[in-house]
Amino acid sequence: MKTYIVGHKNPDTDSIISAIALSELEKKLGDDYIPARAGEINKETNFVLKKFGFEIPEFIPKDEKEVILVDHNEPSQIHENIDISEIKAIFDHHKLGGLSLSEPILVEIKPIGSTSTIITDIFQSKKVALSAEIASLLIAGIVSDTLNLVSPTTTEKDKEAVEFLNQIARLDIDRLSDEMFVAKSDISDTTTNELITKDYKVFDMKGKKVGIGVWETVLPKSVLERKNEILSALEKKKKSDELDLVFFAVVDIIKNSSILLVINRGEKRVAEEAFKVKIEDSLGKLPGIVSRKKQIVPAIEKVLLD
Amino acid sequence: MKTYIVGHKNPDTDSIISAIALSELEKKLGDDYIPARAGEINKETNFVLKKFGFEIPEFIPKDEKEVILVDHNEPSQIHENIDISEIKAIFDHHKLGGLSLSEPILVEIKPIGSTSTIITDIFQSKKVALSAEIASLLIAGIVSDTLNLVSPTTTEKDKEAVEFLNQIARLDIDRLSDEMFVAKSDISDTTTNELITKDYKVFDMKGKKVGIGVWETVLPKSVLERKNEILSALEKKKKSDELDLVFFAVVDIIKNSSILLVINRGEKRVAEEAFKVKIEDSLGKLPGIVSRKKQIVPAIEKVLLD
Repeated sequence: MKTYIVGHKNPDTDSIISAIALSELEKKLGDDYIPARAGEINKETNFVLKKFGFEIPEFIPKDEKEVILVDHNEPSQIHENIDISEIKAIFDHHKLGGLSLSEPILVEIKPIGSTSTIITDIFQSKKVALSAEIASLLIAGIVSDTLNLVSPTTTEKDKEAVEFLNQIARLDIDRLSDEMFVAKSDISDTTTNELITKDYKVFDMKGKKVGIGVWETVLPKSVLERKNEILSALEKKKKSDELDLVFFAVVDIIKNSSILLVINRGEKRVAEEAFKVKIEDSLGKLPGIVSRKKQIVPAIEKVLLD
Repeated sequence: MKTYIVGHKNPDTDSIISAIALSELEKKLGDDYIPARAGEINKETNFVLKKFGFEIPEFIPKDEKEVILVDHNEPSQIHENIDISEIKAIFDHHKLGGLSLSEPILVEIKPIGSTSTIITDIFQSKKVALSAEIASLLIAGIVSDTLNLVSPTTTEKDKEAVEFLNQIARLDIDRLSDEMFVAKSDISDTTTNELITKDYKVFDMKGKKVGIGVWETVLPKSVLERKNEILSALEKKKKSDELDLVFFAVVDIIKNSSILLVINRGEKRVAEEAFKVKIEDSLGKLPGIVSRKKQIVPAIEKVLLD
């Protein structure tokens, strides 16, 4: 019977890479396990696989099989093609999600930044040699899940793993990280209208209709390059939705800050007062502001209520 | 804040020993963790702790604390004094039991014979020296959970662990095992009537009332020493329950066999025919017979129906 290694639905880079790297490890230990995916891979993952010369894993089949789960242990994240009884092992870095099995299996969960770090650890503890390609891939997995070792989930273990792996891979990691973020932030297939409306809500503030869109990204530059288009789209939105005010915030999830796009005098006055900031060239920098619900809305509301 | 290491309710020897041994390991690594118990310890555990000079761990307190779970991960087996949010790590050899947490923690579950084996493995992988006392204790934990390395759950890993530990402990393991089984099978507090009625059922077989009691043990001898008392008690039971037939089986869970106690001619004829066996001195040996429901009842029923 075939054994597949597979991560969660809506796969991210760490879940695809940990499947590939673990299958390479098992191959060296004499087991032929097949890496698989439980959904379409994203642009970042696609970039990384291409860069280091790996194929996109096959889709997890429905056939009778054995399964090793990586990067998750949530019942709701297990693909429908997998029967619970097929799961033979779990390697993960998430919280226990309530999975209930009928037999004991190997479960290895660590509270660290990525599953790729866990796979690196297994290579080390089993003393299995890593190729430069697999080491590169694992670095990419760790960099992706820890936002290049700066996310709050990052641990010493992740940093040590990257250091160890880069003795073999010899990459310019900051450059790799930038390239990955560019790939992840590729909005070439996204229209400007999709940018401002994908995560957009209208609020009633003391009788005033206020529309606020946000776009989370690891690379605000890719969005801000379309500043003028976005400002025009916001003007149109304001008219079509009969808004009193409209705002659009580009949230930088790495720097934990936002840049607010402001279309004209009314919005400018409110924004400057709400965030104690100077709006220049229609842009306002909002350090520490990342939540529409908890930060942006209350600040604007306070100005309108005064 | 204090950190406690604790196993399941109704603690067995493996769950108490893995808590003590893990706390000793952590002590050597600089962490002061307190071994605890989630219920009364059994006679086997008591014997082992006394033999190797360890205290009975304290009862898990209700106070605010951190908790490391050993030897289980079942929500229903977590003592009420523990809040789920206090759990910081899990070391276990059972199936995933559906526990759902709000934060990622360390989880190490292996499909092997005992948690003591897992703790031994951590001593080895962290290269922490073991005292003869702790090595002895861990051997006892493994021997208890694997019935001296013969249970179906026993793996090579358990055997290797015992071998490794006994280079330090230098025990006569078969003798230790026998002593533990004697302690476990201590029925000095059990009345003969409790022996025959603790797991006792009456069956209607073609209008005949048949009472069958079973007693599972690792040491049948301890029960059979009371043969005459048991036979008298069965005679009384037959009268008081107005039975047509009465049987009592001592199930040897190590040898995977039973010894049937047979009171008189009627029972003797049925038993000899049902199990194709010669009853001598009121005893019949039933190799391979361990289940009342699946083996004993159908065999007797078949004779009565013919």
